[in-house]
Amino acid sequence: MSNAKLPPLLEPEGQGGAPCCPPLAERPMTAEEAETAARMFKALGDPVRLRLFSAVASHEGGEACVCDISDVGVSQPTVSHHLKKLKEAGLLTSERRGTWVYYRVEPSVLAAMGRLLVLPAAA
Amino acid sequence: MSNAKLPPLLEPEGQGGAPCCPPLAERPMTAEEAETAARMFKALGDPVRLRLFSAVASHEGGEACVCDISDVGVSQPTVSHHLKKLKEAGLLTSERRGTWVYYRVEPSVLAAMGRLLVLPAAA
Repeated sequence: MSNAKLPPLLEPEGQGGAPCCPPLAERPMTAEEAETAARMFKALGDPVRLRLFSAVASHEGGEACVCDISDVGVSQPTVSHHLKKLKEAGLLTSERRGTWVYYRVEPSVLAAMGRLLVLPAAA
Repeated sequence: MSNAKLPPLLEPEGQGGAPCCPPLAERPMTAEEAETAARMFKALGDPVRLRLFSAVASHEGGEACVCDISDVGVSQPTVSHHLKKLKEAGLLTSERRGTWVYYRVEPSVLAAMGRLLVLPAAA
């Protein structure tokens, strides 16, 4: 029951499915590419959300449910809200198992974000 | 006249000057680490700012002034405002030469952001 929809950063862009986007320093980003990529960066641009993302990413087995995350200092509904935002941004996938929804980092999206930040060796 | 202040992501943290922060998946981030790192991600979390950052990063010689950037569809004062925000976040450095302020990408901060996103090979 994991979400089958491709995360935004990897959505085909009418260019034969090439993942968005080239490294930031390769050429100026188009408005469309920037919209897509900014959504990812924005999702990690909140300290609480970043801690929750780190909590999921570093949890045993690379996944966690709200029940596993209790030490970030926010209420469980707030945790759920932020995890949902991270999922909407394509950074987490989720799967319901019994009572709980388990979240897992989407490695391909993280890799795509990392590629954006690569500078040419000569710079 | 470039700004000598260390960018936030590389500021010593009372741990012998180790650059902030470990990869997101290594262990849960502390509140302090998340504050620092979220500031960087937030700076790139706006489509216009991201395009301007890409315009600077991909410009000849790895630097650009406001006078070089005209095709992002926002006014020159808006360009200046966003470049200043990127500088405050530690992502750009600046140097005044004659009439213009030239902006340049801070490679070490980009590298530190990239390291944050690295997942363990086993994940």
